[in-house]
Amino acid sequence: MDNFIFQNPTKIIFGKNTESSVGKEVSSYSKKILLHYGGGSIKKSGLYDKVVASLKEANIEFIELPGVKPNPRLSLVREGIQICRDNGIDFVLAVGGGSVIDSAKAIAIGVPYNGDVWDFYTDKADATEALPVGTILTIPAAGSESSTGSVITNEDGWYKKPYNSALIYPKFSILNPELAYTLPRYQISCGAADILAHLMERYFTNSKNVEFTDRLIESTMKTIINNVPKVLKNQEDYDAWAEVMWAGAIAHNNLLNTGRVGDWGSHNIEHELSGIYDVAHGAGLAVVFPAWMKYLYKHDMNRFVQFAVRVWNVEQEFFSPEETALQGIKKLEEFFVSIDMPITLKGLGIEDDRYEEMANKATDNDASPLGNFVKLNSKDIVNILKLAQ
Amino acid sequence: MDNFIFQNPTKIIFGKNTESSVGKEVSSYSKKILLHYGGGSIKKSGLYDKVVASLKEANIEFIELPGVKPNPRLSLVREGIQICRDNGIDFVLAVGGGSVIDSAKAIAIGVPYNGDVWDFYTDKADATEALPVGTILTIPAAGSESSTGSVITNEDGWYKKPYNSALIYPKFSILNPELAYTLPRYQISCGAADILAHLMERYFTNSKNVEFTDRLIESTMKTIINNVPKVLKNQEDYDAWAEVMWAGAIAHNNLLNTGRVGDWGSHNIEHELSGIYDVAHGAGLAVVFPAWMKYLYKHDMNRFVQFAVRVWNVEQEFFSPEETALQGIKKLEEFFVSIDMPITLKGLGIEDDRYEEMANKATDNDASPLGNFVKLNSKDIVNILKLAQ
Repeated sequence: MDNFIFQNPTKIIFGKNTESSVGKEVSSYSKKILLHYGGGSIKKSGLYDKVVASLKEANIEFIELPGVKPNPRLSLVREGIQICRDNGIDFVLAVGGGSVIDSAKAIAIGVPYNGDVWDFYTDKADATEALPVGTILTIPAAGSESSTGSVITNEDGWYKKPYNSALIYPKFSILNPELAYTLPRYQISCGAADILAHLMERYFTNSKNVEFTDRLIESTMKTIINNVPKVLKNQEDYDAWAEVMWAGAIAHNNLLNTGRVGDWGSHNIEHELSGIYDVAHGAGLAVVFPAWMKYLYKHDMNRFVQFAVRVWNVEQEFFSPEETALQGIKKLEEFFVSIDMPITLKGLGIEDDRYEEMANKATDNDASPLGNFVKLNSKDIVNILKLAQ
Repeated sequence: MDNFIFQNPTKIIFGKNTESSVGKEVSSYSKKILLHYGGGSIKKSGLYDKVVASLKEANIEFIELPGVKPNPRLSLVREGIQICRDNGIDFVLAVGGGSVIDSAKAIAIGVPYNGDVWDFYTDKADATEALPVGTILTIPAAGSESSTGSVITNEDGWYKKPYNSALIYPKFSILNPELAYTLPRYQISCGAADILAHLMERYFTNSKNVEFTDRLIESTMKTIINNVPKVLKNQEDYDAWAEVMWAGAIAHNNLLNTGRVGDWGSHNIEHELSGIYDVAHGAGLAVVFPAWMKYLYKHDMNRFVQFAVRVWNVEQEFFSPEETALQGIKKLEEFFVSIDMPITLKGLGIEDDRYEEMANKATDNDASPLGNFVKLNSKDIVNILKLAQ
């Protein structure tokens, strides 16, 4: 186990009707906030009205900034920063999924910064201050509701880049599983793929002696695998949604990478896919991850055997670790197919071949190889994308 | 899953040589602290010298209060409160195991309180303020390094009582597995029993649809069961100690009871044992828990079957849940025996029969039954103690 520091201060407010406490929660921080959200879904579902009522009851003034899209755009972040500065706003409330929360976090670090917020995402600066952020989560997926991360897409060149800082752990996150009832099926499945990917990125590590976190990650994966089919079958299955929503937050809240170094190669490859083709992040991950595994499972066969046996209940072939390992990867693919996720680039609607372009962009022309479990250069990435064709 | 709020702000600083950062960590909070510890073990191990050097390097003034005993005493807490008040001390640093940390927490809530600190432990008052507390953990056991809890023993009548408040989450806890190398074997085993007990108290619940936390608890139990024999075999096995130490903290940091109501009957019964006989808490739990299980496993046979199969790898008897359940309890007893824990009151050195006295004290003469999984009155407690004879 590696040395580590872990501190996650986000207050999780979980359960039925918890969104009605948002005004009270915000009022510990601010009297004038930016209310940030996406399209009309929160108005259709009635969530918007509840939030506004709770804010008004707590005498909290708010200015709205809707319009966050999946793969949230830098231009809207800049607009949000300007609104906050012009109006003396000192708190950002995100109501939505990971895109809205990531956008809110970007605004939060952008407001007190003298330069351009994109600096943070391009390693040109590190945030030293941030407005507090609160969230009401509507999509179990990105884990941004209890994480240090934010991923923003710069439309100028379609660069999709992550930034991490302990400053942007949300102060509170309200998680009501009922808010997920009205999600489109495709979004539910994309969310499940994203959560599984967060867990797999952490699971595939070269750090030794990580039994405890291995087991915790496996437990979280099994919870997702067992409950996502239930919510797809009955979108109002509160109990199954509660499992998915809480597991999705824990998957990405940094507990599960304590003492170990995750990989994150697949995420970075996927960022190129969704940067260029604007595909859903989860769907892109469902395509990239199995290909990534097939390309490099021999790097640590024992770990892939453990993954197969413990997570997927594969009957172990004691005399053929390779067969066991490959069965685990197959089970992962079968799971994705069973929840209507694509597992090929074609299935994702990508028919052309810009593999080298993406590989070069992802690695900065091989100046920065991707991943930790196995370092990937642009040639590796092309090979992985070919395996995903 | 029940609605819940979860927020654990403790900063965990984990790994080799992390104790050398204590001065720096403290200096964010204070320049004058109470240095609280137990007997001479931290001097013998060299930890004391390292802590003092780090505090001096950070220009932190400290007054020492050693002398914390297992089942930490109210009289020393009162002494600590007085020292802090007389010297304008505004931070308590605990260096030791759960007893030292619990004592430090009691001092921390006692200093700003006008009344007697015992009020908190007897439900006469609730803390509204506390000095910040930091810890350097030497014994993986109580989980107090990342919990809201403190248990204090009042020598006047030998009452052992818990108090919980989010105010006493430590600000930081330094966890270096190397610090456990020099623990007496008996203390290692008592610690293991305590950790397992924290997990079982949470596991045995009537809350429904708690798959995720069930799985997380099982993972944590398996980690303890797998690694404690390793540290007993080689007390300098860093990797195994790291698993035990991190699992011990997570076992009690409130994550694993999110959305569920734990039992805590066994803990309360054990508090009577160690209150009257001053036995080690972990050893007392190893005696009480199996008896508690035998007394009431029929209350939820499915849960006991799951416990047997998932935690203890019992080969399931599909046509006899009861046999499977009992096998799980037997495995727990065998584990305790394998790490030299007693599983009977006699083994604990308790030969007399003050069962009714303890049962009446524990339930306040049946005014407050114990436990949540099954409510226990004084008669039940006597029966459980008889099963543990």
